[in-house]
Amino acid sequence: MEAGVRPRIVVIGSGNVASHLAPALDTHVGDVVQVMSRDLSHVRRLAGALRGAVAVDRPQDVISDADLYVMSVSDDNIAPLLDRLDCRQGLWMHTSGSVPMTVFEGHALRYGVLYPLQTFSRDVAVDMRRVPFFVEGSDDVEALTIHDIAARISSSVHYADSLVRRQLHVAAVFACNFTCQMWAEADEILQRAGLPFSTLLPLIEATFDKVRQVCPADALTGPARRGDRNVIAAHMEMLPMPQREIYRCISERIIDRYHDEHGI
Amino acid sequence: MEAGVRPRIVVIGSGNVASHLAPALDTHVGDVVQVMSRDLSHVRRLAGALRGAVAVDRPQDVISDADLYVMSVSDDNIAPLLDRLDCRQGLWMHTSGSVPMTVFEGHALRYGVLYPLQTFSRDVAVDMRRVPFFVEGSDDVEALTIHDIAARISSSVHYADSLVRRQLHVAAVFACNFTCQMWAEADEILQRAGLPFSTLLPLIEATFDKVRQVCPADALTGPARRGDRNVIAAHMEMLPMPQREIYRCISERIIDRYHDEHGI
Repeated sequence: MEAGVRPRIVVIGSGNVASHLAPALDTHVGDVVQVMSRDLSHVRRLAGALRGAVAVDRPQDVISDADLYVMSVSDDNIAPLLDRLDCRQGLWMHTSGSVPMTVFEGHALRYGVLYPLQTFSRDVAVDMRRVPFFVEGSDDVEALTIHDIAARISSSVHYADSLVRRQLHVAAVFACNFTCQMWAEADEILQRAGLPFSTLLPLIEATFDKVRQVCPADALTGPARRGDRNVIAAHMEMLPMPQREIYRCISERIIDRYHDEHGI
Repeated sequence: MEAGVRPRIVVIGSGNVASHLAPALDTHVGDVVQVMSRDLSHVRRLAGALRGAVAVDRPQDVISDADLYVMSVSDDNIAPLLDRLDCRQGLWMHTSGSVPMTVFEGHALRYGVLYPLQTFSRDVAVDMRRVPFFVEGSDDVEALTIHDIAARISSSVHYADSLVRRQLHVAAVFACNFTCQMWAEADEILQRAGLPFSTLLPLIEATFDKVRQVCPADALTGPARRGDRNVIAAHMEMLPMPQREIYRCISERIIDRYHDEHGI
């Protein structure tokens, strides 16, 4: 990017990531001039929230002379979309944790990855300055440019190749998605007891406070950590499937890790 | 408890719960005069942190004329200990999530449960005012007394019978212990990639922020939520056992819940 010139940016996608990233790009990096997504209502809403961005819903309507192209679509859609886009100009990036950078080979000449390690839901605010970004580029120049783009949005930018990025993504699935599912299971159990989920918030907050101070293995407490098989058996008896199976699977993992005797 | 008279309290146990509860009882409820635990170094440390509490390590040395007895020992030790204690006087409580109140039958005359829904680690501070306590008593008078005790420690006190309490406990295992284990799995994966666990803290913080605003089911994102089987397959291929099995088990649960087609 030339110093002093605001790059023209096209955002492809209008989902959870795009809806947070597009405003950040527009504010800190350049002018988002176009947003493309097959979901016309989503893309119109997103473009409408940006100054001067045009909403389009067909790949053939994407302009070919922008400076930066940021693709935030589901992993499976990246390659099929690239087949239908004119990628010869500009610097192309996707924001996926799991898709290798090489997906751009044979399509774009200059490309890379701009991966925000964060969970985005359309209507929940996120402080982008604190989101860790992991970047790579098709060569050192592109890597540096993408690093610079990320550094305008966030104070936490790191280089990571596609293999490391995929490991980050799977770690994030455990740390965020599966954690959320554990809370959803707890919510279901509480609903059966007629109690609101908010009952658990002080406990969840304290659990989070702990892992800011000690590593997760040291923060772990509870029946499986203590090897208390009577409590584990009583809990499993209370639970319907498939919660019982999830309880068994994770408790067995904890017991195997912290206790000599195996099996529940 | 008589108004204006500070009750004399015996704490039995010196583990994670006792080490947080004993100081709170001593400050807000009465005088902890004795702490009993088979672990002499732990019990001495705990008694030493209280004004005028004596440390003992044998059940037969527990005084029989205190007003309140609070047992915070592992679930399996409650009944065997009661066999060796003189419980005829005073109000007896345990702090377990899963042990029914009836464990005291045939031992104590006045008894109940004082269950803090919280994770305690000895060296991590907890704001006891915000810990939800769930209480029950052998009759209405005892229930009211235990409610009063809890209300001196915390601003969040609720009645719950042994069945509801057990459901709370199993919900807490999912919300706290299993969440912690998800973070421990993520930590292991990051260690293999040479990255520190702190990389994930903004993500974990955002995940927690979300469930303060929306229910966990609505906060859930990620490959399984999207039904993205290619990413799931690629992630599972990367993971060694037993992480692969945990990944499969939870992803299958999410897909079953949110998508029509079954199986990964």
